[in-house]
Amino acid sequence: MLFSKKWDPKDKHVYVTGGSQGLGLALAILLVKREAHVSIVARNQERLDNAKKQIEAARVSPSQQVHAFSFSLNSASESAAALKAASDAFGGRAPDAVFACAGAAKPMYVMEMSEEDMTKGMMDGYWVQAWTAFAAAKEMTRQGVKGKIVLVSSTLGLMSFVGWASYAPAKHALRGLADTLRSELLLYGIDVHIFFPPTMNTASYEEEMKTKPFLTRKIEETDGGLSSDQAALGMFKGVESGHAHIAADLITHLFRASTRGSAPMNNVFVDTILDFIALIGVPIWRRGADRMVLGHRKEHVEYLEKKGFFA
Amino acid sequence: MLFSKKWDPKDKHVYVTGGSQGLGLALAILLVKREAHVSIVARNQERLDNAKKQIEAARVSPSQQVHAFSFSLNSASESAAALKAASDAFGGRAPDAVFACAGAAKPMYVMEMSEEDMTKGMMDGYWVQAWTAFAAAKEMTRQGVKGKIVLVSSTLGLMSFVGWASYAPAKHALRGLADTLRSELLLYGIDVHIFFPPTMNTASYEEEMKTKPFLTRKIEETDGGLSSDQAALGMFKGVESGHAHIAADLITHLFRASTRGSAPMNNVFVDTILDFIALIGVPIWRRGADRMVLGHRKEHVEYLEKKGFFA
Repeated sequence: MLFSKKWDPKDKHVYVTGGSQGLGLALAILLVKREAHVSIVARNQERLDNAKKQIEAARVSPSQQVHAFSFSLNSASESAAALKAASDAFGGRAPDAVFACAGAAKPMYVMEMSEEDMTKGMMDGYWVQAWTAFAAAKEMTRQGVKGKIVLVSSTLGLMSFVGWASYAPAKHALRGLADTLRSELLLYGIDVHIFFPPTMNTASYEEEMKTKPFLTRKIEETDGGLSSDQAALGMFKGVESGHAHIAADLITHLFRASTRGSAPMNNVFVDTILDFIALIGVPIWRRGADRMVLGHRKEHVEYLEKKGFFA
Repeated sequence: MLFSKKWDPKDKHVYVTGGSQGLGLALAILLVKREAHVSIVARNQERLDNAKKQIEAARVSPSQQVHAFSFSLNSASESAAALKAASDAFGGRAPDAVFACAGAAKPMYVMEMSEEDMTKGMMDGYWVQAWTAFAAAKEMTRQGVKGKIVLVSSTLGLMSFVGWASYAPAKHALRGLADTLRSELLLYGIDVHIFFPPTMNTASYEEEMKTKPFLTRKIEETDGGLSSDQAALGMFKGVESGHAHIAADLITHLFRASTRGSAPMNNVFVDTILDFIALIGVPIWRRGADRMVLGHRKEHVEYLEKKGFFA
C-alpha cells in the first residue's frame, strides 16, 4: 500500500450497522463530517431518530443524505433487506462502503453459561456482521460496485482469556471471514478490512460489566480503553490507509503484529518491531494472567459451590 | 513445559469424536496401542462397528475397553448425552481426555453460497466440537477430573484465502474457544490443546474436493498433505508434550509461530526462528496467492455469468 492514494469518503454512500450508538454512531458522525452520505441501521427506533439528528447536525453540506433504518440483522434475509432499503434511497445502487459495527458481548464463566449463552454469543458477535458482509459482497459484485467491506472484531479476535468463551470465538470467526473475503473479493475489486478495537467506553461496555466475571475484570484492570470517538478515528485511519488488519491502541497492535496469519502487514518495519516487542512482552503478560487465574482457584471453587454448581 | 513429565494415555479413558474414520480413527488406534481405554463417537453405525473392530485389533491387552457410540453432536444436549453414554461405561466417571475430531468442510465461492452453506459451515466446523468441549469442561469440573480437552482446528484456523468463507470462520472460532478455555480451565486443572492439521488425505478430503473451487485448488496445488496416521501422530506428540497450539507440518508451524495471540509458545527458540522465517516467507506466499486470484478475474466473471449469477 506504499504511496497508494488514500480512500476518501467524500460523496460516497456509506452504510453503517450498529450506527445508532457507540462506535457505529461515532463513525457515522466522522464520515458525514468528511462529506459522505450516510445510512445507519439499528433496531431501536428512538435511538435511531436521535442518532440521525446528531449525524445530520454534523453535515458539511445540506445536500448530504442521511438515512436511518430499523432492522434486525440476525439473519441473511433481514441483513439483505436492510442493505436493500439503504440502496433503494440511492436508486437501488449498493453502498460504496459497508461498515459492520453491530454487536454485543456477554462475558461469563463457562460453568455458568447455558447453551443459549453460547449460541447468542455467536449471533451477537459474528452473524450480526457476517450476514451484512455476505449480502454486501454479493450485491456489490452483482452491480459491479468496487467498494469496501469493513468488519469490527475485537482485541479478543486475536487472543483470549477467562470469561470470553461465547465472545472470543465469534470475534475470531470474523477474522477468519475477513481474511477469506480479502482474498476472494480481489476478484471483484472489493476491499475488505477488519478492525480490532480494545475496550471502548460505550453503552455496550456498561452492559458487559453487568455479567463480567471477577477474574476477567481483574485481568483487564490495567486496560484503559478508548472512547468511541478515538476508536472510530483509528478505524477510519486504517481504512483510509488500506490496512487489512486495523488496530487503534498499542496493546492490540502488539497482538495484531504477532497474530498476522496471512494478512498483509500494515508496515513491514513497524510490524516487525511490534512483533519483536510482542515476542517478549506477550508471554510476560500471559504468565501474569495465568498466575491470577491460578491464584484465584480456591475462591472460585467456593463461589461455584455457593452457586450450586456441584450440587 | 521444559523438563515436565510427558502425558501418558496408559490406563486412561480417552474419548474421541469423529472416531470412526480419518484423523479420529487414526488417533483412536494410536491411543489404544499406547494402552488407553477408548470410546469413539460418530453417527454412522456401520462405520462405527467397522472402526471398533480395527481399534480392538490394535489393543495391547484384552483388558482394554473399547466402546463405540452412535450420536449426532450438533447440539449441546446431544453432545452431553454422548459424553454421558461413554462415562456410564466407566461407572459415570468423565473421560480423562476428550479429543474432539469430528468435523467437515465444504469449500465454495462466496457468490455460490446459500445462507444454509454458511450456517452449516459453522455447525460442521465449530459447534460439532464446541458442544463436546462445553459438556466435557462442565462434567470434568463437576467430578474433579483433572483431564485434557483437545480440539481440532485446521491450518485454516490460523489464516485463510479464497474458497473457505464457511469453514475458516468456524476453525478460527475454535481457536478462540481453545485460547479462552486454556486460560479459564486452569481453575480446575484441565489442560486444553488445539491441533491445526493441514490437508489430510482422508474420506473428508474426497468430499471437499467435490465442491472445491478452481482457485482454491490452484492455491493449494503445492500442499502435499499428511496421511491421517501422520496427522494423528503429530497431534498426539503435541498433546504429550503439553503444547497449547499443535502443528504437524512445516507450513502450519510457520503460521502457528506467527499467529500466536496469547497462547504459550511451544519452544521459545524454535518458535522465534519460525516466526522470522514466516516474517519473510508468508508475505511472499500471500503475494503469489493474491496474484493467482487477480490473474483469474476475467475467467471467473465468465464462470459466474455462465452460472447465471448476474441474471
